[in-house]
Amino acid sequence: MENHGERELIRRISSELRRAPRAGGVPASTVPFGDDAAGLPMADPGWIWTTDILTAGVDFESGRHSWGAVGRKALAVNLSDCAAMAAVPRAALCGLVLQESLSVEDALQIVRGMHECAIRFGCPIVGGDTNTWPHPTVISVTVAGQVPPGRKPVLRNGARPGDRIYVSGPLGGSILGRHMTFNPRVELGLEINRRLEPHAMIDISDGLSVDLRHVLEASGCAAELDCSLLERVIHEDAHRLGLQDGKPPCEHALHDGEDFELLVALGPDASAETCRELGLMPLGTFVAGAPRVWLGGAGAARQEVAPHGWEHSLRPE
Amino acid sequence: MENHGERELIRRISSELRRAPRAGGVPASTVPFGDDAAGLPMADPGWIWTTDILTAGVDFESGRHSWGAVGRKALAVNLSDCAAMAAVPRAALCGLVLQESLSVEDALQIVRGMHECAIRFGCPIVGGDTNTWPHPTVISVTVAGQVPPGRKPVLRNGARPGDRIYVSGPLGGSILGRHMTFNPRVELGLEINRRLEPHAMIDISDGLSVDLRHVLEASGCAAELDCSLLERVIHEDAHRLGLQDGKPPCEHALHDGEDFELLVALGPDASAETCRELGLMPLGTFVAGAPRVWLGGAGAARQEVAPHGWEHSLRPE
Repeated sequence: MENHGERELIRRISSELRRAPRAGGVPASTVPFGDDAAGLPMADPGWIWTTDILTAGVDFESGRHSWGAVGRKALAVNLSDCAAMAAVPRAALCGLVLQESLSVEDALQIVRGMHECAIRFGCPIVGGDTNTWPHPTVISVTVAGQVPPGRKPVLRNGARPGDRIYVSGPLGGSILGRHMTFNPRVELGLEINRRLEPHAMIDISDGLSVDLRHVLEASGCAAELDCSLLERVIHEDAHRLGLQDGKPPCEHALHDGEDFELLVALGPDASAETCRELGLMPLGTFVAGAPRVWLGGAGAARQEVAPHGWEHSLRPE
Repeated sequence: MENHGERELIRRISSELRRAPRAGGVPASTVPFGDDAAGLPMADPGWIWTTDILTAGVDFESGRHSWGAVGRKALAVNLSDCAAMAAVPRAALCGLVLQESLSVEDALQIVRGMHECAIRFGCPIVGGDTNTWPHPTVISVTVAGQVPPGRKPVLRNGARPGDRIYVSGPLGGSILGRHMTFNPRVELGLEINRRLEPHAMIDISDGLSVDLRHVLEASGCAAELDCSLLERVIHEDAHRLGLQDGKPPCEHALHDGEDFELLVALGPDASAETCRELGLMPLGTFVAGAPRVWLGGAGAARQEVAPHGWEHSLRPE
């Protein structure tokens, strides 16, 4: 996207926040700015926290999705961030900006959907803020999570040339429904960290091509995806969506957002058997080079994959 | 207000969240639901976190207030919640939903305003989420704070009949400008906790009549404000606004929101001299009874003050 896209904005915000010296005392965050979650500024470095905002018309459709499903998703996207850090979600804050045309029952459905998901994942909602206004509904959730004793949060910046790229499930076409009903990979993220010592991890929210690039930029290397491996991670929804819109299903797997599967960098000596047991599917390899995604493989011409996933944009200056 | 008002909604949300059993393990929050901040679910009970959402057209006017001032306010309202818990703000997450017509420079102005305030209060912004959409801008900030060693967060539920009511500064008419430029009473909240052992504390965001009532409901008692004491805490802005809209300035002091002064419950033996040193102004007394605010005093007929402050509302069912 143009240089007024979301990634550019985040880069400039991050640089803005480095301008003035950090205040003394407790270190502010044990996690570099821009990862899936931030470190909570405590003596115990095992705590992280993350925030995500869902907006009507972008992340859900008021008329189409039940308010319960919307509330569930607002929490689940944060749980997915915890999964990507290999942290156990512990508690949530819920901020609501409700369109005035909603009824109290609609609002309670949001909370109920969120609460049921919260209980299932052992992450109770302990506070928040409620507001109303005449515009579409906005839901902001913040989750604090804890990395198991003796472990560290898994960051984006640890992938090295020679590492293997894995994904926790098939990709693409989530807009057909899965983007509302996905199951955040919390237990899996913990298992991966316990059994495979991953070098880097991220959840696929913006799309494989964009989120893989986040890992590449943080880690300072490139990635080479294998055509035939990519074929095997195409979700059946990507095929169905391809039939509707005429796009190759592999494009949907590469660029669609909101799969909320985990993208994992594992050392070359990681156990292939453990990967199979955990359902991890290989996609390719990290290689030396500028942070770009390449697609190749036996008999295929090597080509660059541009990051085409979801990005918010602002007015150019 | 009607039973579809914000307070009723929060009551129903709170009851909804109690429906299912809390997950085992770490206690979810050391602070009762609905206080200024929630407890962070850690072994150390001295950590609290709070979230507040600001919306264009409600909390600020896009055309009228600079984006820097808007960003500053979005953080400062959370710092005010920390002040009311007597906690040191330690780190912030910033969630932005920017109207698409904003420029990158506008967005950076928000971050800059927030960042300058963050540095001043030693509370760096360590992460967040950015989004854009076609509707007015929404800013959600979450702050984690830490109560000094050996202290507990000051809650709303500790006021007892016989306690005195104090306020940290004059009230009313903040809409004339102070609602954007107020100074969160972080240092003062810490001093009050250190020197006066307050029984309860809250920041006045919705208005004296509403926020005092929050304390009464949590504490299970009533309050009696003294007319002549109330006269002395009327801000000059309340007088100016009264000249414009014809309302008695004392009504503005009682019901206007966004003063962000601290309302404090002190035991009857609290040092009057320390109160003076800290600039605390007496307002009246907590008394036994249902959670209502009464206004009386020498020569005045005792009358109930209805909570008329700011409340969001939804469509009735």
